[in-house]
Amino acid sequence: MPVTDKRMSRYLDMVDEPKHLKKLTIDQMRQLAEEIRHELITVLSKNGGHLGPNLGVVELTLALHHVFETPKDKFVWDVSHQVYVHKLLTGRKDRFHTIRTTNGLNGFALRTESPHDCYGAGHAGTALSAALGMAAARDKRGTDEHVVCIFGDAALTNGISFEALNNIAHTTRRFIGVLNDNEWSIAKNVGAIATYLNKLITHPRYNQLAKDFERFVRRLPKGDIALKLAHKAEEGFKGAINEVGLRPTRTTADSDGRGGYGSAALFEEMGVRYLGPIDGHDLPLLISTLEFAKTCDHPIVVHILTKKGKGYDAALKSPEKFHGTGPYDIRTGDALPAKAGSPPAYQDVMGQTLVKLCQKNNTLVGITAAMPSGTGLKHLEKAMPDRYYDVGIAEEHAVIFAAGMAASGMHPVCAIYSTFLQRAYDCIHHDVCLQDLPVIFCMDRAGLSANDGPTHHGLFDIAYLRCLPNVTAMAPKDEDELADMMFTATHHPHPTFIRYPRGAGEGVPIKDQPKLIEIGKAEVIQNFSNNGRRKVALFGLGNMNSLARQAAAKLSAEGFDAAVINPRFTKPLDAGTHEFFGRAAEVVVTLEDHVLMGGYGSAVLELFSEKGVTTPVVRIGWPDQFIEHASTQDELRRKYGLTVENAVARVKALFSDTSVTAKLVEVA
Amino acid sequence: MPVTDKRMSRYLDMVDEPKHLKKLTIDQMRQLAEEIRHELITVLSKNGGHLGPNLGVVELTLALHHVFETPKDKFVWDVSHQVYVHKLLTGRKDRFHTIRTTNGLNGFALRTESPHDCYGAGHAGTALSAALGMAAARDKRGTDEHVVCIFGDAALTNGISFEALNNIAHTTRRFIGVLNDNEWSIAKNVGAIATYLNKLITHPRYNQLAKDFERFVRRLPKGDIALKLAHKAEEGFKGAINEVGLRPTRTTADSDGRGGYGSAALFEEMGVRYLGPIDGHDLPLLISTLEFAKTCDHPIVVHILTKKGKGYDAALKSPEKFHGTGPYDIRTGDALPAKAGSPPAYQDVMGQTLVKLCQKNNTLVGITAAMPSGTGLKHLEKAMPDRYYDVGIAEEHAVIFAAGMAASGMHPVCAIYSTFLQRAYDCIHHDVCLQDLPVIFCMDRAGLSANDGPTHHGLFDIAYLRCLPNVTAMAPKDEDELADMMFTATHHPHPTFIRYPRGAGEGVPIKDQPKLIEIGKAEVIQNFSNNGRRKVALFGLGNMNSLARQAAAKLSAEGFDAAVINPRFTKPLDAGTHEFFGRAAEVVVTLEDHVLMGGYGSAVLELFSEKGVTTPVVRIGWPDQFIEHASTQDELRRKYGLTVENAVARVKALFSDTSVTAKLVEVA
Repeated sequence: MPVTDKRMSRYLDMVDEPKHLKKLTIDQMRQLAEEIRHELITVLSKNGGHLGPNLGVVELTLALHHVFETPKDKFVWDVSHQVYVHKLLTGRKDRFHTIRTTNGLNGFALRTESPHDCYGAGHAGTALSAALGMAAARDKRGTDEHVVCIFGDAALTNGISFEALNNIAHTTRRFIGVLNDNEWSIAKNVGAIATYLNKLITHPRYNQLAKDFERFVRRLPKGDIALKLAHKAEEGFKGAINEVGLRPTRTTADSDGRGGYGSAALFEEMGVRYLGPIDGHDLPLLISTLEFAKTCDHPIVVHILTKKGKGYDAALKSPEKFHGTGPYDIRTGDALPAKAGSPPAYQDVMGQTLVKLCQKNNTLVGITAAMPSGTGLKHLEKAMPDRYYDVGIAEEHAVIFAAGMAASGMHPVCAIYSTFLQRAYDCIHHDVCLQDLPVIFCMDRAGLSANDGPTHHGLFDIAYLRCLPNVTAMAPKDEDELADMMFTATHHPHPTFIRYPRGAGEGVPIKDQPKLIEIGKAEVIQNFSNNGRRKVALFGLGNMNSLARQAAAKLSAEGFDAAVINPRFTKPLDAGTHEFFGRAAEVVVTLEDHVLMGGYGSAVLELFSEKGVTTPVVRIGWPDQFIEHASTQDELRRKYGLTVENAVARVKALFSDTSVTAKLVEVA
Repeated sequence: MPVTDKRMSRYLDMVDEPKHLKKLTIDQMRQLAEEIRHELITVLSKNGGHLGPNLGVVELTLALHHVFETPKDKFVWDVSHQVYVHKLLTGRKDRFHTIRTTNGLNGFALRTESPHDCYGAGHAGTALSAALGMAAARDKRGTDEHVVCIFGDAALTNGISFEALNNIAHTTRRFIGVLNDNEWSIAKNVGAIATYLNKLITHPRYNQLAKDFERFVRRLPKGDIALKLAHKAEEGFKGAINEVGLRPTRTTADSDGRGGYGSAALFEEMGVRYLGPIDGHDLPLLISTLEFAKTCDHPIVVHILTKKGKGYDAALKSPEKFHGTGPYDIRTGDALPAKAGSPPAYQDVMGQTLVKLCQKNNTLVGITAAMPSGTGLKHLEKAMPDRYYDVGIAEEHAVIFAAGMAASGMHPVCAIYSTFLQRAYDCIHHDVCLQDLPVIFCMDRAGLSANDGPTHHGLFDIAYLRCLPNVTAMAPKDEDELADMMFTATHHPHPTFIRYPRGAGEGVPIKDQPKLIEIGKAEVIQNFSNNGRRKVALFGLGNMNSLARQAAAKLSAEGFDAAVINPRFTKPLDAGTHEFFGRAAEVVVTLEDHVLMGGYGSAVLELFSEKGVTTPVVRIGWPDQFIEHASTQDELRRKYGLTVENAVARVKALFSDTSVTAKLVEVA
């Protein structure tokens, strides 16, 4: 790892604002790039994060800040997990060691964090549309800032990118796109777009033109021409570039009139000028090219090639692992050893269970939207590749594709994170539920994704699914019940949704053969002992069931008669069990890893209202605000009161007050 | 209008199943086409419906059923408003006069209506994904049915279509797409795709090839070769076509190796073979081409050109009007006169109000996703075209584009139907609400769209929006309040949603200058008279407020003291007003044009639970099932109990029983 650590003489220490960059020579910027890589590798070895993507955009980010001026000019980063370098260069380097930790920097662009972050993201494919909106606003206002959209090749597998491309040319004349094409990502990327970009890169004509352009730039006098460009002495140079290759000419055009330098049908048919591909680690070339793009009076996309993990051997060797990584040993790149005896992650239980089920049921297939590892479908990919579909970052297609298969007798399993399933909401409604098709949805990351923060928390799915007819929705209390629920879903000929949290399970043994669960039936974990004490019924949904059990133990120790129920289903709710315990108890507590508004507790209130049950209900869950990121889930749970202590305190407060209803107001 | 009405000798009467078609000669099919047009024009003059699109696909549908065999083969129709001809040919002609009426045929493909409808739709852009799912299921099973996806040029402006195109080539080798390219639609269609298709059609090379192909087919011996083809005597012919033009050859390929007959980069770069454009009203040509597509062992898209409204002058002259029309005078095509003094439609009040607001506030712009008429934005388009954006059928892009504008100081108004806004759910979450950006959403068709049915009802938006932080959501009781709410939204720097119903307003006068409404404040329409009678508080949301007022009048006449509240906001709920009336009343009634599950009434229950208000709540709204189509909204309201009578009866039942809570169980 060729990095230095001469703290006292770092260029990084001198760059407090992007404008300081403009004073550096190319050589100095190269040294700065090395320092930045060192900083990334060091900090992320402790904090984890998107190491690979950020190592890949060091030169690009330097070039962007060299050529443009944020916050006046706008950088819109797709997904925005690649903004660490941008954060280092925009006044946040002193806080960089806090990234993804409690009260620290967020791992994505965040409007509230810096004026240099003009637009946030965490889901892919949104940047072109957002940037086009900014360009349109600029045109409407008549101001002159540049809008630069940096998007990856994977974003092009998402339909929103195409909706945006379709609208660029007739909306504005000034729009700069940078297609950050990650060579590794392409190889793993799926679908025609990946093939297309590969073809583009390897096409002899484009390669030749790229070399010509590079040679042309390098031949220019004074070596450091790029810096001269930045200092506005380049009018003649730009004209020359235009003449040589950047404007379509007879000699470079296709036979049907398209083309010009590096012409690429996909973009040019959309009315967007295309330039590239160029080496995304060549600073002078990047700077010259961006300088040219800056002068264009026509929308343009610059296609650059970068290496994910560049500058760190371990990341180059394992690009998937280092795309988003936990803490690791800098020297070896090995992940820090997990605690001995850690339970398996839900995602792995899901993937391994699906393999088992697929082996016995040939109508089952697994579908992922570019998340084979995160969803655990990699197990299916490995064991039964012909039953596995990765459709790219295309959640809508994934769901409708599943609906089409289900309409033809298959029983597809869509494995999509809770937050990303929001992207296919209408497909769930219009294609799956309305037609009552047997598609199984396995929603990982339902609940918090603590390090990532609000773009990745899955806190809304109970509410957005519960209102849709024909939905069956479950949440397992542990990883063994997840397997049971998956098995049950394969016997249920209707749309079925299973939500479960990120990370490790409860550590319970997993049965060899999962068992069927009765649809709409809750599980009584602990009944009242009917010992004459005051009764509290705790309904703990999914991963909150363990909190319910702990709270019950505490309440029992303090003299209450506590029952614990595992509701299992948020729809259909088990009316009998909820009503029985609702009537028997003096206080009901619902606990859910979901927002309170419209969630499971709200479903219980609806049921109680219908049944005339007036027992007060204490609802524990997330409040009506976006939850920030933090080092751990527990810190956020403590901050927002999703704890055993708070559940117990709220119950006791109700009982200690003569006016239960007045007290309820206070603790709500 | 050259149509005939010789009832006794119609070919249509002879076609009870698609296979009967195969016995007809081309001339007989042409006669049948004329009869079908006559049937469409006659029935829709009474029932209304999608006349233009169906007149455009008469020959295509005949050719499809001539060449393929449903239900074994699968036709997946995008949006599926163009399936009337298909319905006429698949055993439903005797019920065709019932289309879009109560208990009659649905206006879209419906799996529950016929085995020939293998997949339903109502939203655009879903067909390619669904058909690909069916093709994948077929490949997995090893059966041999054909899957044919019929999609319009407008579907290509939707991102899902591209997500599907990206996945076709590596998923299956057998996939037939028919791009039904409506010339009028292209002219009106927006964006680069429209330009691209236009270029394709008018490109001399494609035109020449199209002519060559046509000439080639016509030159074949025996004139009626298409029918011979259908009878499987055509092997040599197919080989000949391949040799002549259908396979890429050196002479027809582009300089960069793409191409072949009618090559089109957009499709071919996606790995899908392209064929066309051909005349979509030329039966023999359609039949031969589809016969060829049937034999392809590579995904293929056949591009056909059709005329919306073909065969009916009035529809040809006014394609937008006749895309989806109400009843009309057959002779003139004029819409049947509206009742004198009908109130203006909400959509027009919205459009006219927006024009007024834009004239005074230059940060406002209007954005529609291909619905200028339906949303009323056509008023803005006409009055202030530079403040108007139509982005195509691209709801996700529309919302993120709006977010981008809002992030740059503008205050965009997204006018999208409630049901279509579901398509941008994640964009609302991830781009607008999470960043707390001031985008205004005007949701027309919130509530029922009676003739269209479940794909078009907007019954879920309160539930799916209420759970998201930073949302302000309103519903006006009448069209004047809609204007007030729009005005208010323009002063509210947060995401704001206004839901209002399809069709005519209440007939109230609209103020010249709309007024500001206090955010989160309900309006008390009628307070208790405190006359010592038993108190009922009726909370009537939006268009249900008039039912609340009528129910209050009836209850007062029967001896109750009834209050009526216009909640205005479903978020933030007016806690004070709800709690006050909740405590004062013995029964609370909530009325909403929305599903009960997770809706406004559920929000009231949450609030009452938090405040310790135990007054029983009767919630009136739509049940947890998909609501079918019907002739009128009132019929469905009666069927499902959204009536004054039911509200009154449920209140009285509660009071007449000694056990209020037990009674609640019964009436729930």
